[in-house]
Amino acid sequence: MPAPQIVTIPHKRVAVLSPVAWRTPPRHYGAWETVASNITEGLVARGWDVTLFATRDSVTRAHLHAVIDRGYEEDPSIDPKVAEYLHISEVFEHAAEFDLIHSHYDFMALSYTLLVKTPVLTTIHGFSGMNYLATVYNGIDLSLYPFQERGGDHLIFLGRIHPDKGVHLAVEVAHLSGLPLLIAGIIQDETYFLKHVQPHLDDRQIRYIGPVDVQGKNGLFARARALLHLNTIPERFGLVLAEANATGVPVIAMDLGSCREVIQDEQTGFLVNSVHEAVSALEHLSEIDRNVCRQRVQQCFSIEPMVQAYERVYQTIFEMERKR
Amino acid sequence: MPAPQIVTIPHKRVAVLSPVAWRTPPRHYGAWETVASNITEGLVARGWDVTLFATRDSVTRAHLHAVIDRGYEEDPSIDPKVAEYLHISEVFEHAAEFDLIHSHYDFMALSYTLLVKTPVLTTIHGFSGMNYLATVYNGIDLSLYPFQERGGDHLIFLGRIHPDKGVHLAVEVAHLSGLPLLIAGIIQDETYFLKHVQPHLDDRQIRYIGPVDVQGKNGLFARARALLHLNTIPERFGLVLAEANATGVPVIAMDLGSCREVIQDEQTGFLVNSVHEAVSALEHLSEIDRNVCRQRVQQCFSIEPMVQAYERVYQTIFEMERKR
Repeated sequence: MPAPQIVTIPHKRVAVLSPVAWRTPPRHYGAWETVASNITEGLVARGWDVTLFATRDSVTRAHLHAVIDRGYEEDPSIDPKVAEYLHISEVFEHAAEFDLIHSHYDFMALSYTLLVKTPVLTTIHGFSGMNYLATVYNGIDLSLYPFQERGGDHLIFLGRIHPDKGVHLAVEVAHLSGLPLLIAGIIQDETYFLKHVQPHLDDRQIRYIGPVDVQGKNGLFARARALLHLNTIPERFGLVLAEANATGVPVIAMDLGSCREVIQDEQTGFLVNSVHEAVSALEHLSEIDRNVCRQRVQQCFSIEPMVQAYERVYQTIFEMERKR
Repeated sequence: MPAPQIVTIPHKRVAVLSPVAWRTPPRHYGAWETVASNITEGLVARGWDVTLFATRDSVTRAHLHAVIDRGYEEDPSIDPKVAEYLHISEVFEHAAEFDLIHSHYDFMALSYTLLVKTPVLTTIHGFSGMNYLATVYNGIDLSLYPFQERGGDHLIFLGRIHPDKGVHLAVEVAHLSGLPLLIAGIIQDETYFLKHVQPHLDDRQIRYIGPVDVQGKNGLFARARALLHLNTIPERFGLVLAEANATGVPVIAMDLGSCREVIQDEQTGFLVNSVHEAVSALEHLSEIDRNVCRQRVQQCFSIEPMVQAYERVYQTIFEMERKR
C-alpha cells in the first residue's frame, strides 16, 4: 500500500448519507452505519465541513441533519419504506448546500442523482456490477478496539446469526476440536437459529450470548483464541475481521470474497476452504504474532487510511466537476 | 352532480405515472393501473398530449415511456423495489418535458417532487391524511361492461381474496340464504383462502373460479343475481361496484368507506351493516331497476366525467403555476 498522500480542500461541504436502519454509529449491529460514522468523524477530524444525514438520535461531531427519529430496526412504529424515502429525498432536497454528497444508501439514492447538480459519490457496500472510481477499504475506529497482549481459550463467533455467516460451521469446528465456542450477534434468521444453532447450545461448551456492543465485543476478544468467520457466501468486507485483528485476535476465515484481502494468510490468521481446514488451522494459531495483526489493521483498515483514500476520491470528483 | 364544464387547454403535455405492479391496463387485477389507463385514454380522446409511464408491455393510445419490461407481480425475476425506484425516478428525470405530472404512485413519488419544477398531481388511491385539491371519482370504461337486460341466479364475489374484502362474509350469506355463490379474483392472502374460503368450496353451491379478465367478469355478471361486497375495512373506491352496476347488476355492499358514495341505497343496491342485513337485502333485489344502475355509473363513474373533473383540477394547477 503506498504512503497516503495528504490532500486538503478547504471550504468544501460534504453531506454523508448514512442508512436509517440503525443509529449512526450503531449501538451493536449496523455495518454500514459504522462505516458512515467513521468516515464522518474522520473527515471532521481533518477539518472538513461535514453534515451527517442519519437518525435524530445519532452521535456525531459533524452537523446532524435528521428527519427520522430512530432507526427503523430499533423502533417498530417506523415504516422502513416511508423512512427511507423521506430520509433519502431530504439530502437531495438540500443538495445545493453541498459540494459533494457521499451516499451509503445502496441503489435507492442513485435514483435521485440526475435531479441535482451536486456530484454524488456512492460507497457500494452491498451490491455490485457498476463501474467505479476506486476501491477504498473500510476503516474501524482503533480507539474502540485496544490491543490486548493475550487472548483466551475460546473460539468466538461474532456476527449476524444467518446462514450467510456460517454459524453452523463454527459449531462444527467446536464439535470437531472440542474447544469451547462463544456465539454473539443479532438473530437475523430465526428459523436458522432455532434449527442449526440452538440445538447445539449446552450452556457449557457452546454458548450464545446475544448481541454485543463495543464493550461486549472487547470482552469477547479478551477470551478468544481465534475468531471463526466461516462465511458461506463471498464476504463484502467483514468489519469484524478487522475488529478482532485490531485487538490481536487471529482470524480463521473462509476464503470467499474479501476475506483474503482483509486477512493475510498465515500472518493475521488463516484462510480456509472447509471446516476440516479450519480445524487444522487451530493447531497453527501459535504461529500468529498478535502485534502483526494490530499493525495490519492500523495500516490498512483504520479511519485514517480510509479517510485519506476517500479524500483522494473526492479530489478526483472535484477535478471532474471543474472540467465539466 | 353539476353538468361538467368542458375545459380545453391546447399544447399542454401531461405525464401519467402508473404503477408497475401490473401491466397498464391490467390483464385481470390491478385497480390503480385501471384508473391510470382510463384517465390516460380519456385525456387522449379529448385531444391532450399524454405520455404514459408504465410497463413496456402496456397498451395505450398515448406515448408510452417504459424502463420496466413487465409488471413485477407478473414476473418474479423483477425486483419490486428496484423496479419502483427506476420507474418513478424516470418520470422525474424527464419532468422538464411536461407541464404536469399526474402520479398514481402512492407516497413514493412525492419524495421527488421538490427536485423538479413541473407541478405534480397525485391521485390518492390508498393513503390519506394530506390536504387535497379535489375529490374525483374513479371512472370505468363503459364499453368494456355492456348493459345486460337480465342477470342470473348466483350471488357473486369479485375481488382480491383477502380478509379486507370479506370473502368469508359472502360465504356466510350463501350459507344462510341457500343461494349459489361464485367467487372470482386473485388469491392475495393464501392463509386466509386456505382457512376461510377453501373449506366451504363444494363444487356445487359455493365455487371459486380463479382470477378473471374483462370477458370473465362480464360472464360472471351475466350469471349474477347480485354482487356481494362485504368489505371489513373502509373501501377506498371499489371499482367492481361500478363495473357490476354498469352491466345492471345490483350490489349489496357493507356501509364502510366509499361504498355509500358509489352505491345509492335502495336505488343501485343495498348498503348493509351485517351478514344478516345482507341476507335480508336479498329479498328486495327485485325492487332495483337495472337501468338505473347503468345510468348512475354512466353519469358518475365513467371515463368522461372523471376526465372532465381532472381537467378542472389541471386547470386549477395551471392557474396556480401562472400566479407563482
